[in-house]
Amino acid sequence: MNNPILVEVLRGMLVESRHRGAVVVADADGAAVLTIGDVATPIFPRSAVKALQALPLVEIGAADAFGFGDEELALACASHSGEAGHVAGVTRMLAKAGLDAAALRCGAHWPMAQSAVAMVARTTGEPSALHNNCSGKHAGFLCVACAKGIDHTDYWRPQHPVQREVRAVLENLTGAALSDDRCAIDGCSVPTWAIPLQNLAHAFAKFGTGISLSPERARAAARLRAACAQEPWYVAGTARFCTEIMQLFGARVFVKTGAEGVYCGALPEEGLGIAIKCDDGAGRASQAIMAAIIARFLPLGDAERVTLARLERPILRNWNGLEVGALRVTDAI
Amino acid sequence: MNNPILVEVLRGMLVESRHRGAVVVADADGAAVLTIGDVATPIFPRSAVKALQALPLVEIGAADAFGFGDEELALACASHSGEAGHVAGVTRMLAKAGLDAAALRCGAHWPMAQSAVAMVARTTGEPSALHNNCSGKHAGFLCVACAKGIDHTDYWRPQHPVQREVRAVLENLTGAALSDDRCAIDGCSVPTWAIPLQNLAHAFAKFGTGISLSPERARAAARLRAACAQEPWYVAGTARFCTEIMQLFGARVFVKTGAEGVYCGALPEEGLGIAIKCDDGAGRASQAIMAAIIARFLPLGDAERVTLARLERPILRNWNGLEVGALRVTDAI
Repeated sequence: MNNPILVEVLRGMLVESRHRGAVVVADADGAAVLTIGDVATPIFPRSAVKALQALPLVEIGAADAFGFGDEELALACASHSGEAGHVAGVTRMLAKAGLDAAALRCGAHWPMAQSAVAMVARTTGEPSALHNNCSGKHAGFLCVACAKGIDHTDYWRPQHPVQREVRAVLENLTGAALSDDRCAIDGCSVPTWAIPLQNLAHAFAKFGTGISLSPERARAAARLRAACAQEPWYVAGTARFCTEIMQLFGARVFVKTGAEGVYCGALPEEGLGIAIKCDDGAGRASQAIMAAIIARFLPLGDAERVTLARLERPILRNWNGLEVGALRVTDAI
Repeated sequence: MNNPILVEVLRGMLVESRHRGAVVVADADGAAVLTIGDVATPIFPRSAVKALQALPLVEIGAADAFGFGDEELALACASHSGEAGHVAGVTRMLAKAGLDAAALRCGAHWPMAQSAVAMVARTTGEPSALHNNCSGKHAGFLCVACAKGIDHTDYWRPQHPVQREVRAVLENLTGAALSDDRCAIDGCSVPTWAIPLQNLAHAFAKFGTGISLSPERARAAARLRAACAQEPWYVAGTARFCTEIMQLFGARVFVKTGAEGVYCGALPEEGLGIAIKCDDGAGRASQAIMAAIIARFLPLGDAERVTLARLERPILRNWNGLEVGALRVTDAI
């Protein structure tokens, strides 16, 4: 594997660090309109496929049964920052299914947002599973189990009916065979399957358009996209890339980050899906690449162009606020 | 630049991410005993050269004038975690020079240590410049200015006598010309000069042995190394790599991390200096590489071998403590 350098990190006038990676943009037939680097080797999409993992929640009627609105559906697709509103939303999701935080099996971690860390330190002193960035997804899984009337205890295990359903949905969307030898454990303990980048882009083109999906699945995808477009703060949080992009573009762009330098997205009006993986796992690089890809494939207004240019070439400032460098996307994109 | 893959990140049975980089191990004559990748292009050493930047503090007699012991000297070389002991130590350094935190120009950031973040949130509510990982280095710079009897206000600027002295020391140790076009601003606002990796390894071989240094500089280097070996917690902090390595090996190994995937070190008894840079800036990879390099060049006891093997191939666990993968150093090292 020898993927090209896609992002350079400048300090002063010199390049300090470099990020390699692969990118594919595909349509709903699976035809690639842009291919950079190795897009055939399976990679772990991690949290970038949370919206696909949330499809059963809507499809089987669980979201309706529990009266979920846009905030709850956005949280089911989220890697949230653990801010107060996220925690309250996930608590509400669980309560609607007659559960509480004790049912979550995602583990606890300190919130991503520094302000939320300080809040937790000042109040309860320790974070709970509700602060885990995946707690909304897990609440969604629990709601699927409850709506089906099955024991939810082991909802995170690969053999539990909820995860088997999620696996079938991922196979349907990506067209990839999710064999056991491609399965690993995600940060929140649910299975993550390695999938070729080209299949992920294809999946997000289908998710963004409904093409090649059953009517129920297409409707569920449209509802999740609409929820994220309506409530993008619940998909990530304050000052987060996913949130800023969807606040800017609304339903015209869906984006979702994943750990280890993955980004997936859809441009529904263009009929395109996007999948990005940085070789080294750097989120700062995958964000800049996503901004560049959106700018390349979406017709832009002036304000949109300015914002994307800033996200594609973020200024780096030090602890005194001095400008010390910047990221820049290379000519390989 | 096409440096080799030096570290792979495994999830389950598959490689999830990859880190490229360059490594050089050199003796005090500048002869390389190991060269991997591009070691000639200048790179920013960042905090990895803090011990070299601290040499004037000892050489000009400031450390003696203010009665500094091992803790203070270790802090002058530190990227500390902002734990209570670090903050107290830096406060003490400043007080000995008749100063307080208001003199620091490093900027404030939340402590690296999560426990310290919680402590700050519960008490003062906001971090101060004392919590900045570079505050010990800055206190050292201030003490140099005070001992020289010069105005310390702009001690961080490239043209201030303190930084000119530091620059001269770095040129003497590395043998590299630190021209203005290789100068950028570090995270704490002091200058950082890009230096070829091979020159950095040479510098640390000199720092570790005293060879080719003036008697005063050689004594200052020995004193700083002894201080870090005696008080390694003050160089980094709880559960940090630099601290664990120097706790294990004492004066036999000096190591210091820098931002953006840099690691420098010395094996004094072997007469060797080490310099590592990961292309993508990943600290997790540079640590694993440093462990592998130490294991390769230092005669080891059984317990030392076991600890280095763990640091060279750290197990990755998720939020539930489940083993999800590991890092592994490749055959390129």
